Amino acid sequence: MTGDLLIRSVRPWPGDPAEPVVDVLCRDGLVAATGVGLEVPDGVPAVDGKGGVLLPSFTDAHAHLDSTRLGLPFRPHSAGTGLAELIDNDRRNWRSAEQGVAERATHTLGRTIAGGATHVRSHAQVDVDSGLAKLEGVLAAREAHADRAHVEVVAFPQCGILRERGTAELLDAALRAGADVVGGLDPAGYDRDPVRHLDVVFELAERHQCGVDVHLHDVGSLGAFQVELVCERVAALDMRGRVTISHAFALSTVDSERQRELVDLLAEHDVAVTTVSPGAREPLPLRQLRWAGVRLGLGQDGIRDYWSPYGNGDMLDRAWMLAHRNGFRQDALVEMCVDIATRGGAAVLGRTLGLTEGAPADLVVVPGDTVTAAVMDRAPRTLVVHAGRVVAAEGELV
Amino acid sequence: MTGDLLIRSVRPWPGDPAEPVVDVLCRDGLVAATGVGLEVPDGVPAVDGKGGVLLPSFTDAHAHLDSTRLGLPFRPHSAGTGLAELIDNDRRNWRSAEQGVAERATHTLGRTIAGGATHVRSHAQVDVDSGLAKLEGVLAAREAHADRAHVEVVAFPQCGILRERGTAELLDAALRAGADVVGGLDPAGYDRDPVRHLDVVFELAERHQCGVDVHLHDVGSLGAFQVELVCERVAALDMRGRVTISHAFALSTVDSERQRELVDLLAEHDVAVTTVSPGAREPLPLRQLRWAGVRLGLGQDGIRDYWSPYGNGDMLDRAWMLAHRNGFRQDALVEMCVDIATRGGAAVLGRTLGLTEGAPADLVVVPGDTVTAAVMDRAPRTLVVHAGRVVAAEGELV
Repeated sequence: MTGDLLIRSVRPWPGDPAEPVVDVLCRDGLVAATGVGLEVPDGVPAVDGKGGVLLPSFTDAHAHLDSTRLGLPFRPHSAGTGLAELIDNDRRNWRSAEQGVAERATHTLGRTIAGGATHVRSHAQVDVDSGLAKLEGVLAAREAHADRAHVEVVAFPQCGILRERGTAELLDAALRAGADVVGGLDPAGYDRDPVRHLDVVFELAERHQCGVDVHLHDVGSLGAFQVELVCERVAALDMRGRVTISHAFALSTVDSERQRELVDLLAEHDVAVTTVSPGAREPLPLRQLRWAGVRLGLGQDGIRDYWSPYGNGDMLDRAWMLAHRNGFRQDALVEMCVDIATRGGAAVLGRTLGLTEGAPADLVVVPGDTVTAAVMDRAPRTLVVHAGRVVAAEGELV
Repeated sequence: MTGDLLIRSVRPWPGDPAEPVVDVLCRDGLVAATGVGLEVPDGVPAVDGKGGVLLPSFTDAHAHLDSTRLGLPFRPHSAGTGLAELIDNDRRNWRSAEQGVAERATHTLGRTIAGGATHVRSHAQVDVDSGLAKLEGVLAAREAHADRAHVEVVAFPQCGILRERGTAELLDAALRAGADVVGGLDPAGYDRDPVRHLDVVFELAERHQCGVDVHLHDVGSLGAFQVELVCERVAALDMRGRVTISHAFALSTVDSERQRELVDLLAEHDVAVTTVSPGAREPLPLRQLRWAGVRLGLGQDGIRDYWSPYGNGDMLDRAWMLAHRNGFRQDALVEMCVDIATRGGAAVLGRTLGLTEGAPADLVVVPGDTVTAAVMDRAPRTLVVHAGRVVAAEGELV
């Protein structure tokens, strides 16, 4: 459902803060015109941007809506260390949540939209413990917010594919049940057989003609080897532009020459990368990836769940985290983080966002003197627009 | 000026979230009693803690109130890279701020108090360019908030001591004019003569019988050498408990054996350490420092100034940053960050905070199910109490 809208008094980014504010007209869900003091066409609703900065809306390119506990009573972190223990801890606990997956995912997706994201790629855990229950919850959340955001769902084998019999069949069922993308997880480090793991993933992708998004925490040369394995399959199956590597810690844990090779490889195969800007990990080589033309998005990861207490549904806060963790002080670098969090993530989802005429009217208005100031302030979003319709205002859904 | 106060309905930390809320009576600026349903003594004002978590108030153990632009129109970051360029950039710009130092420092100190900090150690730049102007501004801010917070001011040679003739004399004048502590800055890496630099600093400390707080960004063995030089002077002048090393990047840039030696050396000489939890630097060995008994505080550093766009006056946000940067998920570790941000920083200033009877009634009430939840939420503080008087409520000064 697309809409018509006149947004008054905003300052498009990039732009000179000293320039007068402009109005932006949206028609049929697209940006139609930008100018000072535009007339309101008959029947078109008008809203006030209050002089805020106008950005393309945020994309959360890597969320786990299925596990969120945002808004529920806080539970102390109960997991020990290590991925296997985190997986087991989630299994021990997720069924005891005060609400089901659908209700929790719907709440957090709503907070994410209110924070200015109108494109979201969420993983939904598919495994022999939960079957398709988590996927169904995330699909219900997507349906609940269908008019407010475009949501892609990844059938995500959080517990590996080969370690537990029946997971590959569940992934197949998940893709038939509405998942858009097939996931993978540390084919070597966790699932213990990188070739077979990736062969299952890409076979499913071929069968369902869908994209791939592989979690790759494996570091160093083992992680780098798996980046190569992914790219080999992209080439063999002609899947350029349809594959994402999430986290990709390998890129920041090899020497600079190897890093350059991997970045070039990703660019050559048009394999996208997403980061969640983890606090304690070495940051990805953001500039190198962008210079090479690699599509690079930002995500929230888990949002206050059995895995981690962090995350709040706010992609502007996440952009702040990316900038701060990288030690960026220059406005151009902070703005690069905003670009990763908006257009960058959208490109990972195969969408082109912008503010020019004909671009999708997926927009967010943020209070602040400049984009960098807005990142530092992280104030509630003035307006969030999806497909030409206001979906949130002053930090709350409408 | 101390006060009497009854704080109703709070959950003291540490404590069991399932326990009933209690009331806390403050008398003459001290915690006098804690219990369920305390009677209000005649003439004692009562305030509602709304079931929030009660903590000792925050201490900002390392601020630069003299340079802040918080609340003023945002200016793009105009410095190039490197400490010398940052220093020069500040010199080129600080006089053109829309408000003077006193007004700016007063505003940001107010925001810091509203965020729950009632103890602050602020550096005030003393150099041949600005003379004592910045110090006077910070002293004026301290005076403006004298009833709301305890503020220590460091006479800080931001431009070195030996590089510009007359700085040592200005530091001496600053200590006569009201500064409490004498500062230093990278005695080797910036001022180029670690022995002479530290001899000037410690000679001033001896003359004025004041504490010392040295910025030490120098890394690796050069930084470690200067930690030793500081400790030698502490021993020679019997200054245990009165010296702080700020940043102390050396600790996280040497091998683990050398790190252990340095931590032991700091503990032996009771030299405190402060961190601002920078995004792109390796974190300090927080647990090792605390296990060894080293007093360890947290600070905001610059707060949206010509040095950096970051900082917002919120020490709870800074505690979040410390936890996130260290990858802490366990509640005990997140709570350790809160302890560093409260009691830890107070200990750096030679103050003992707590919630037990007889402790100073410097308290903050934060909404949240638990302390960790409060850190994650970073909601406006319900109440801030200094010396038994409410100084801020719901995120605003009273």
